[in-house]
Formats: sequence, C-alpha cells, structure tokens
Amino acid sequence: MSNGLLKGKKGIIFGALNNQSIAWKVAERCHEEGAEFILSNAPIAMRMGEMDALAKSTGSDVMGADATSLEDLEKLFDAAIAKFGKIDFILHSIGMSVNVRKGKHYTDINYDWLQKGWDVSAVSFHKVMRIAYEKDCMNEWGSILALTYIAAQRTFPDYNDMADNKSYLESIARSFGYYFGEKKVRVNTISQSPTVTTAGSGVKGFGGFMGYAEAMSPLGNADANDCANYCVAMFSDLTKKVTMQNLFHDGGFSSSGVTHKVIEKFD
Amino acid sequence: MSNGLLKGKKGIIFGALNNQSIAWKVAERCHEEGAEFILSNAPIAMRMGEMDALAKSTGSDVMGADATSLEDLEKLFDAAIAKFGKIDFILHSIGMSVNVRKGKHYTDINYDWLQKGWDVSAVSFHKVMRIAYEKDCMNEWGSILALTYIAAQRTFPDYNDMADNKSYLESIARSFGYYFGEKKVRVNTISQSPTVTTAGSGVKGFGGFMGYAEAMSPLGNADANDCANYCVAMFSDLTKKVTMQNLFHDGGFSSSGVTHKVIEKFD
Amino acid sequence: MSNGLLKGKKGIIFGALNNQSIAWKVAERCHEEGAEFILSNAPIAMRMGEMDALAKSTGSDVMGADATSLEDLEKLFDAAIAKFGKIDFILHSIGMSVNVRKGKHYTDINYDWLQKGWDVSAVSFHKVMRIAYEKDCMNEWGSILALTYIAAQRTFPDYNDMADNKSYLESIARSFGYYFGEKKVRVNTISQSPTVTTAGSGVKGFGGFMGYAEAMSPLGNADANDCANYCVAMFSDLTKKVTMQNLFHDGGFSSSGVTHKVIEKFD
Amino acid sequence: MSNGLLKGKKGIIFGALNNQSIAWKVAERCHEEGAEFILSNAPIAMRMGEMDALAKSTGSDVMGADATSLEDLEKLFDAAIAKFGKIDFILHSIGMSVNVRKGKHYTDINYDWLQKGWDVSAVSFHKVMRIAYEKDCMNEWGSILALTYIAAQRTFPDYNDMADNKSYLESIARSFGYYFGEKKVRVNTISQSPTVTTAGSGVKGFGGFMGYAEAMSPLGNADANDCANYCVAMFSDLTKKVTMQNLFHDGGFSSSGVTHKVIEKFD
Repeated sequence: MSNGLLKGKKGIIFGALNNQSIAWKVAERCHEEGAEFILSNAPIAMRMGEMDALAKSTGSDVMGADATSLEDLEKLFDAAIAKFGKIDFILHSIGMSVNVRKGKHYTDINYDWLQKGWDVSAVSFHKVMRIAYEKDCMNEWGSILALTYIAAQRTFPDYNDMADNKSYLESIARSFGYYFGEKKVRVNTISQSPTVTTAGSGVKGFGGFMGYAEAMSPLGNADANDCANYCVAMFSDLTKKVTMQNLFHDGGFSSSGVTHKVIEKFD
Repeated sequence: MSNGLLKGKKGIIFGALNNQSIAWKVAERCHEEGAEFILSNAPIAMRMGEMDALAKSTGSDVMGADATSLEDLEKLFDAAIAKFGKIDFILHSIGMSVNVRKGKHYTDINYDWLQKGWDVSAVSFHKVMRIAYEKDCMNEWGSILALTYIAAQRTFPDYNDMADNKSYLESIARSFGYYFGEKKVRVNTISQSPTVTTAGSGVKGFGGFMGYAEAMSPLGNADANDCANYCVAMFSDLTKKVTMQNLFHDGGFSSSGVTHKVIEKFD
Repeated sequence: MSNGLLKGKKGIIFGALNNQSIAWKVAERCHEEGAEFILSNAPIAMRMGEMDALAKSTGSDVMGADATSLEDLEKLFDAAIAKFGKIDFILHSIGMSVNVRKGKHYTDINYDWLQKGWDVSAVSFHKVMRIAYEKDCMNEWGSILALTYIAAQRTFPDYNDMADNKSYLESIARSFGYYFGEKKVRVNTISQSPTVTTAGSGVKGFGGFMGYAEAMSPLGNADANDCANYCVAMFSDLTKKVTMQNLFHDGGFSSSGVTHKVIEKFD
Repeated sequence: MSNGLLKGKKGIIFGALNNQSIAWKVAERCHEEGAEFILSNAPIAMRMGEMDALAKSTGSDVMGADATSLEDLEKLFDAAIAKFGKIDFILHSIGMSVNVRKGKHYTDINYDWLQKGWDVSAVSFHKVMRIAYEKDCMNEWGSILALTYIAAQRTFPDYNDMADNKSYLESIARSFGYYFGEKKVRVNTISQSPTVTTAGSGVKGFGGFMGYAEAMSPLGNADANDCANYCVAMFSDLTKKVTMQNLFHDGGFSSSGVTHKVIEKFD
C-alpha cells in the first residue's frame, strides 16, 4: 500500500542490517510512502549486512557511521544536508550489549562491556540528536524516533543490561525532546514487541519468550512490518504534537496483567 | 491535505456538536481521507448543535442516540450495519459533569450528578462497545477511540469529578480492549491537551489554565485539528497493533516536570 | 512485635469481616502498635462476620455503617469524634462487584449491578473522606488509606468491573488527596497482591491466579499480615509526606515483565 | 522520637557529607531507631566533609570507598562482614554530574563527563549490590535503597544529564531487585522532593525551583528529615514485600497536574 504520506520528506535511517531488521522494513515503507533518505549503519555492520540491496530498491545512499563517534556523525549529517538541505525524520534503531552476547549474568556483569553497550545503545541517540541540533538541520515538525523495549519499565531477566540502556535511551528522548520543542521537532520512542531480528534472536531463551509475549498480547506480537507502519505514522504530519512519549506498540502486552492463554498454564 | 488513508473505511463518530468540537474536526478529516460514517449525538445536543451542516459537507447521515441508552445504541448500530455492513472505526468524544457545570466543589459533590456524569462520560463507552461486540459488527483491524485527559493520572483541581470519570473511561478501554483483541480490534484513548471547545470552556479558570498548559508543553498545546489528524492515524492501517493504550497527545505536557516558561514565574 | 509506633493515634477501620480479612489483620497490628480505633462494616456484613471477637481482642467499638450512606457515615464519624476528638487514620477496605459474584461476563455486564459495585467499591471512599473533611476531624499529619489492586492499571480478565472500580477509587485518592493537603492529611492507596480473603476467593479461577502471581513476584505474594505491616508504616509518622500515591505492595509483581518461573512454562 | 524499629539491624550508609545531606539525617534516624552501621563516602568527599562528628554521635565507623571501584567496595563489605556478620540495609545516596557542575548545556554535553557522572551516580549502585550479592552478605528480608528524583520520568531542563542517570539508576534497582528476590532482599528507590543539600544547591536556578516544587506539592516539599523517616520505614520489617518500586516521597508533587498556587501565576 502507499498513500504518499511521506512525499517530499527526507530522513536518515540508522540500523538496517538485513531484511529481518526493523529498520530495513521502515526504510522500505518510507520509500513506498514517498520519502527519500540516507541509510546508515556501523562500518562493521555494513560489511556483514546487505544494505546495498536495500539502497538500490529504495533509491537511497548508504553511508557508514559509527553512531558513537561525533566525527562520523558530523560527516553523515553534512552529507545529508548537502543532499537534502534540511531533513524531516530520523530513525535510531541501534542496540547492542556485549554482556548479552557473551552470556554474562547481570549480577556478574563486565563493566567495560556495560559501558560499551550503554554508549552504542543509548548515548549514540544523544550524539545523533546533538549533531542534528547543532547543525539546525531538522525542518519544523520533523520527527525523531528511537526503538526501545518494555524492559525499560519491567524486568525481563534475560534482557540483562539492555534494560538499563533502554531506560537511559528513553530518558534521552524526553530530555532532548524538551530542547527540540523549541525547534518544533518531536522526539519519541516506540516500545516494540519482541521481534525476530538478528539482534533480538541473540537474547537467551528467545523462542520461549516470543511465545510468552504472544500469549500475553491480546492482538498478538507486533512484527517488523507492523512497526514500520507505525514509524510511518510517527514520521507523517498526522502526529505533529506527540512528543517526549514512549509509545507501546505491542498488541496490548504492556496493559495486560495476565491473559487466559497465560493463566491456563497455571491451572 | 488528503492521502486517502481511510478509503473504504466506515465508522460512527459520537460527539460532534459544533465546529469547535474535536469530533467535528475528526469527522471533517476522516471525510477528507475517504471514510464514510454516521454522526451521532445526544438528541438534546443535536437540537442545539449544527450537525446538519457537518452531515452535508461530509456526506454523512445524522442519527440521534443517547449513549447511555442501550436501546438507542442498538438502533444506531442497526442503522450503521444496514448502511455499511461491518464498520471499521468508532470515536467516542462524550463527556459531561453536572458538578462542573453547576460549580459544585469536589469535596461537596452531589452524588446524583456524580452518577449522571459517570454514566454519560464513562459507562457510555462500555455501552457503545458492548453493542458493537454483541452485534459482532467491527471489521478485523478496526479501531475504537475515546478522548480523555491527563486529569485521569494527575490532579487538576478544577477538573473536579471529570478526573475520576476519565480514569474509569481509560480503564474501560483496557478492559474491553482485552476482549476486542479476540476480534482483532484495537481500543485506545487519546489524552488530549486542553482544547477550546464548548465543553472545555465550561471548566472554571479555563483561560489561565490554557496558558499554563501552553507554557508547560514544549511543542505547545495540541488543538482540535491536531487531534483530528492523530485520530486519522489511529483509525488507519498504520497503527494496527496499538491497543489498550492511553496516548498522550499534548505537545509534551505529560513528560514535562517543569519548563523554563513556567519556572520563570517563580524566580 | 510491637514498637508503639501508633501510640496515641485514633482511627476508623472499615471492612474487617473475619480473620481472613486484610482489615482484620490491620486492626490487630494497629492495636499492637498502640492505636485505638472504631471498627465499622456494613450492617449485613456485621451479621455474617465475627467482628465482636476482634472488637474484644483490640478493645475497640464496633459500629455498623453502610459506607454508601452519608447518613450512616455522619453517625459513625460523630461517634468517633465523641470518643476520640480528632482522628489520625482511616482504612478503607471495601469492595464488591455483583457482576463478579453472579458470574456476569464483562462484555455482557448488568449496568444496575455495575452502578452498585461502583458505589460500594469506589464512591464510598469519596463519601468517607467527604464526611471527614466536612467535620474537619482529621488531625494534622493524619493518614487515609484505601486498598486497591493492579487491575486498575493492567487487565486481569476475570477481575471484571472491579478493575474499573479500582481505577476510579485510585483517582478519588488523588483528587481528594489534593484537598486534604490543605489540612496536612495524606491520602494513598495500597495496591496489594491477590490475597486469600472471603472477597478475593470469589473471583473465578482464583487458585491458578494466585499461583501465577506468586510465580511472577520475585519476593512472592504479599499476604494479609504483610499488608497490615505496610498499613502501620503508612499510618505512622514515618511517612508524613507521601500522598496521592498508589503504592504497590506485591513482592515485585508490578515491575516484573516476566520471571524464570513463568517463562519456563513456555519453553 | 524512637521506637526501636531497627534494633539489631546492621547496615552501610553511603553519601553522608555534612549535616545538610539526606544520608546524614538517615544515619541519625537509623541510630535513634537502634541500628548500627558503617558510614562510607568517597575519599575526597570525606576530606571535605564532617563525617567524624556523625560517626561519633552515632557510634559508627567511617570507611572511605570510591563507589565506582570494585576493589574499594570489596574492602568495605569485608569490613562490614567482619564487624557485623551479615547486614540488613544499604543506603545509596550518591550522585554527581560534572556537566551540571561546569554548567554545560544538555545539548552540548561533554561525553567524558557524561560517563563519569553515569558511573558515579548510577553504575555505582550496581557495583554496590553486586558485591553484596557475591558475598551473600545480606540477611533475609534485608532492604536496599537508593535516592532518586522525578527527573527520571519527566523533564526538568536544568537537571541536565542527571535525569538520564536517575533513569538508569531506577532501572538497576528493578533489574537487580529481581535477582535479590531469590535472597528475600528488597531493592527500591525513593524519589525525593528537591532538597536543600550541598549537591542539590549546585543545580542552576535551584531557589526558584524549590519554590515551584513547594507550590506544586499539596503537602509541601519533603525535606531531609522527612526522607530519613521514610528510609527508616523502608529499612524496617514493616515493608518486607515492597520491592522493585520507585517510591515518590514528594508531598504529592508527582500526582499534581497543577495546583491553585501555580495556576494563579497564569491568570
């Protein structure tokens, strides 16, 4: 489907790795809706990924940038400005925990890895917005989004230090959202159902967990395509006054104390 | 603007009184986006209102219904089914407190009026959904919305018993949203900035309050047109997996502890 | 144990039916800590209950009052004032849904019963506070508490219309708490784990549900004795500046997205 | 006042600098209630502070420890174990932002300082609990508390990166609280009113802000003495089943959308 909802809008999309990535689906949907954008990912992710195919199908440029590096981000935004003038939307879909990858228990965490994950998963969002703010390159009524997870509010033990990173990320959205208000730009996070992506799959016991989340969600889990649609709505002019919010996109999981499908396991 | 986002969708819109009403703007925007709908309001409101003009400009039927009456609602939904077959969206924009109107203090409330306001403002939403559920007349991926206010979470003293009504309303959205999940229908509330409508203006000290809310909202208050756009997004297929949520649409008010514009009054 | 924490404090405790009641345990603990109080319950509950035994063991008076009747409440507060002068604390542990009792499904609710349950479970809290406020009979730094349940925030389908009642109750706590602030009196709700009481047991599938809640709570469910201790803390001078809060007392249930004990059922 | 509420309990209190510190008041109140404890602070803070006087008046040992250093914390906990055997409570009252101190704007933050503040203000709480967990030195039904601020939920622009640190801190409380559940130990944060301490005073425009917070709090701001009382309640056996919670201790600020005292500035 296409309704030309993002016609004329320009953006930067961080975090498309392969066709399982949420950011990949977002890019495809934004393209369908008429947007133009630059795709960016960490140089190392780009080598492993398949971004060229996405760039081709969406008529986009690809540009590597380590989102923890102000220098890389400056170059990226300069390229975006050179190409587009001002921009209208940014998607931050970046997250990584070395402690999760290496199977470190939360009570026995490695603090260097903690810092690395915090920097990549959360502080990078501050850095992205800081460069956009300094360069004053967002159009009025632009929209900045980051993806997050409900572990920021409630404990999911295997999510490990990513829970704390997501809390920090959501706080950055509010903190920076305040200042972007002056520029008539909104900043929000989408708290997405667990999603089968290369990143998501790395979490221990992910299969059972997906089943639990599905059973706890009256509409079922939201998948990457659903998320892409929601991002389109949040980038469009239909949601101009929504800011500093964490938006649950989860089939009702967050508002379910229990469901019949879950409780029947306890009878 | 129009993107044909609601093309082919059918609905019922409750609560358009005059061109200051949020529901009025929602109706106009839904029409622009290709939806067809029936307009409904309380018989007494219809006599005072200007709904015929709206019906004409949007090609809609108007049908009176007391939303506290199951009988009236049955007739309304039967008419909608006769006209449309199944329907895709419902807007509940209904609220009224006799205690507010008559200037009764919250600590000295009249309990008959309390019950009346609760029935009109909150229970009516249950009744609307109950009839839709019983008649099984919502299409899959349909969307049901009610309008609410942040007084449901935090105290705004002049909002009086409407605060408690809105809490109840939001709870109904979650409770019934659970059951509508089985039918792949979503139920949400939009928690809107204070808005200059015939209803809103009745609240004591509304002018000063609008100024305060504006100063506390980094993007400024959302107005009725903004709200109409957000409703379009929530009725569209872009937001299929959002359910049982209370969505703040308030320029950031809900996430602002204080702003520079407010704090300067205290220096 | 006793620390004389409530020595010299006077109160009214609503809702002790038998020795399974939370209010019963609260009364016992308040007595141990040195408080004096009047026990009150609905006349019909008093006939079925065993309050005389509690009155004897705690040196209290018992006085029937229908908490939905302003007249009954006036008499009760007049008696309390006659006995104690001003009072320091109130416990509201009152709740009842005819729809739950009769097994009516939420989507097919009886609205007369809905109103009855709303009046008994929620509006009664307003009425109690209103009389206390009018008679100006709370000492400074007094404490008013009502018991609630997390169904006010998240859906537990079998909890039925009690979820909506609890939302309304919690809203009343905030709304009236604002006005009691002027009198230096605090108003809060305690959101308690599911508890084996005569009332709790009436909820369908309660056994399986208790097991689920236990598995979802890192410290296990809080029981009636635990709740009584928490109420003592909230009535004591240790918590003077806590007001308009909903306090989860649930072994961590409210902050748990999932636990290992729950997820293992899905592997 | 004293009720012997903490008789026989042993603890560690971090962060008492001088008699304006919340931790100082907590130490005094815990002593009054019969607890024994070790006072700890950063070596540099100890040189500037007046902890010896507090140690003397409360019969405590003082031991320097950089709470970001696992090595220092190990020594501290070993000393506590040597002295007390197992311990019952911990207070974490540690926070610092170089960006705040140096007046760096949030949109122009120094990232080395950001990391330093994050490590000191938030990660230190993880490190403290990790050592306690590894050494298995908490008694059953022990209680761990950290102090936080509502900037973790809502934006207070001058609070700068401390907002994000507090979000991270509160997330750590939930994440680690889950694992401490197995040991029957609770972990919570108290979200305190703005308080006149050496740390608090460093925030820009603090005076006007205190006035605003006072006007927005129906019971007025909670001060350091109030907070000490609340900590006593949370360390006592009255609150055993409260865990993974963020507890607002703020005179009602967090539940106030507006107050008459604030709105009158806008009329």
